[in-house]
Amino acid sequence: MNVAILAHEGFPDRAKTATGILRYGDQDVRAVLDRENAGKRVNDLVPGIADAPIVDGIEEVPGIAEGEIDALVIGIAPIGGGFAESWRSDVRSAIERGCDVFSGLHYFLGEDEAFAALAAEHGGELIDLREPPEDSTVSQGVASEVDAQVVLTVGTDCSVGKMTVSYELVEAAKREGIDAAVIPTGQTGIAIEGWGNPIDRVVSDFAAGAVEEMIVERGAAHDLLVVEGQGSITHPAYSAVTCGILHGVMADSLVLCHAAGRERVHGYEDYELPSIPTYRSLYEDLAAPVRETEVVAGALNTSHLDEGPAQEAIEEYAEALGAPASDPIRFGSEEILEAIR
Amino acid sequence: MNVAILAHEGFPDRAKTATGILRYGDQDVRAVLDRENAGKRVNDLVPGIADAPIVDGIEEVPGIAEGEIDALVIGIAPIGGGFAESWRSDVRSAIERGCDVFSGLHYFLGEDEAFAALAAEHGGELIDLREPPEDSTVSQGVASEVDAQVVLTVGTDCSVGKMTVSYELVEAAKREGIDAAVIPTGQTGIAIEGWGNPIDRVVSDFAAGAVEEMIVERGAAHDLLVVEGQGSITHPAYSAVTCGILHGVMADSLVLCHAAGRERVHGYEDYELPSIPTYRSLYEDLAAPVRETEVVAGALNTSHLDEGPAQEAIEEYAEALGAPASDPIRFGSEEILEAIR
Repeated sequence: MNVAILAHEGFPDRAKTATGILRYGDQDVRAVLDRENAGKRVNDLVPGIADAPIVDGIEEVPGIAEGEIDALVIGIAPIGGGFAESWRSDVRSAIERGCDVFSGLHYFLGEDEAFAALAAEHGGELIDLREPPEDSTVSQGVASEVDAQVVLTVGTDCSVGKMTVSYELVEAAKREGIDAAVIPTGQTGIAIEGWGNPIDRVVSDFAAGAVEEMIVERGAAHDLLVVEGQGSITHPAYSAVTCGILHGVMADSLVLCHAAGRERVHGYEDYELPSIPTYRSLYEDLAAPVRETEVVAGALNTSHLDEGPAQEAIEEYAEALGAPASDPIRFGSEEILEAIR
Repeated sequence: MNVAILAHEGFPDRAKTATGILRYGDQDVRAVLDRENAGKRVNDLVPGIADAPIVDGIEEVPGIAEGEIDALVIGIAPIGGGFAESWRSDVRSAIERGCDVFSGLHYFLGEDEAFAALAAEHGGELIDLREPPEDSTVSQGVASEVDAQVVLTVGTDCSVGKMTVSYELVEAAKREGIDAAVIPTGQTGIAIEGWGNPIDRVVSDFAAGAVEEMIVERGAAHDLLVVEGQGSITHPAYSAVTCGILHGVMADSLVLCHAAGRERVHGYEDYELPSIPTYRSLYEDLAAPVRETEVVAGALNTSHLDEGPAQEAIEEYAEALGAPASDPIRFGSEEILEAIR
């Protein structure tokens, strides 16, 4: 699928979905729309991921006039999940060109009357990735019965790298010949995979059931499933999502993700993060009555540290955790993969 | 408000909402509809709650022909929350008589085209208590700032008496002159109070926020708030709801509710309940990073035991819990109230 990704004024740091697709997706990204960085290329700003030109607007995307672009993807997730009106003209033009539009915003494009009418007229689809399927239901408590080995990435907070670690683990496993797949539970993973269920938008009674359903559906097709976790079990606002996923997944093992130096809950700075050993026992003790499991490895995001301090931070983290640890982006995922096997 | 309560073939044991309203509601219940028990009275089957005749159908409700009945309440919650077609003629007749209809079913009466058209014609309202407000949002982590003391009833499982204990505690507090109120989080509490938010139907991202919103709203109006908990923190399907409530409430203290002799998760019999001390530490340890709190008392449902064994069971439970305990329905709530003050 040929796509353009909208990330105005946010690429790369505030455009998690854009960088996620460029790093892990199999879409052919023909351009990134960011009027602040137009003229540069993706690799000028982020090396080591798929490259593409950065352009000013939809009309500058190579191939757009020839009808080669299948879809525009909203690649940026502003706080609150709203739609910025400054994006409207690009979205409108994309629809007029017959493109589908993928969006993971809380604001559903399909409920925007102007977009809906335009899409109907031009034959494109508006795909709201954050809209959960209508047929969700309660968990049956059967996820542990699948043949595949199931690993869940859990975290000390939001935005510590659970999605990234899930993909890095699956890529490392594939390199070793293991048939592995990510189970996507959030809008970026869903945008990368083209399927999934945004658990944070599922009715709380059905959160565990919705993730169980995905595991049961894919459990026979792969040998290793890595479930993308969400939030944190001690998060003042989002712990319900985390807890539903933890009990719905019934994981064989857990990988605890953390960002080096993070001491307070992101966006809720009144709240201190508890110690790493506390997280380990909270996750294990809470999971145990439904399914015994263990934190077998740690993943530490050290992107803001120099090489020496990064290595030190990982060593400290591994010691606090009592398990092997790495920064998968920086130092690879082999130790973590070893620990989960 | 004069009401009739529909509980066909389910009163009293499968009609939790009906008995909840008869025990704790301030509605004037003119009759209970149960074609299996028609001719008896409520107190023939359940002593100690508001009495009313049990009748065959809506046309037999005293005062219905005179237009004295304001509303029909669906007082029974079948597994799955569906609507039984055998109730349709009574609901239809009630609407035709100009009654409102209150329902806590997952099946929304307002989305039933036949009922909706009939209600529009006759001027009655269809009130779906399980439909959460549209404006829910994420928790701010501020529930602990309210002036009122806040107690949360938590449980070892579903259907162990959290709602009942919440009401018993509030009634005991009121008898001692304390301005106390229940914060209703499920359909029965909402049916009793006429307001509330069904947290199990709220999007998981907003579960904590929805309960926080209620506490903030009522925190200045009362001296003691008892929040009705839901599910259990170790439930294979519903723990997300429980966890969201635990962190959203930021309770000053917890009361752990249990049913004597319950050893396996209700409806999920493959799963054993962990020990009482395990529950205590799970709830306390999980709450602590957001708000330090303590299980200060226990409530044990002993309704199926004789007096002697009931007292023994309570003593054992108190010892396992390391806190005072009682069966509030049978032996009063004074010890529990003492412990939370």
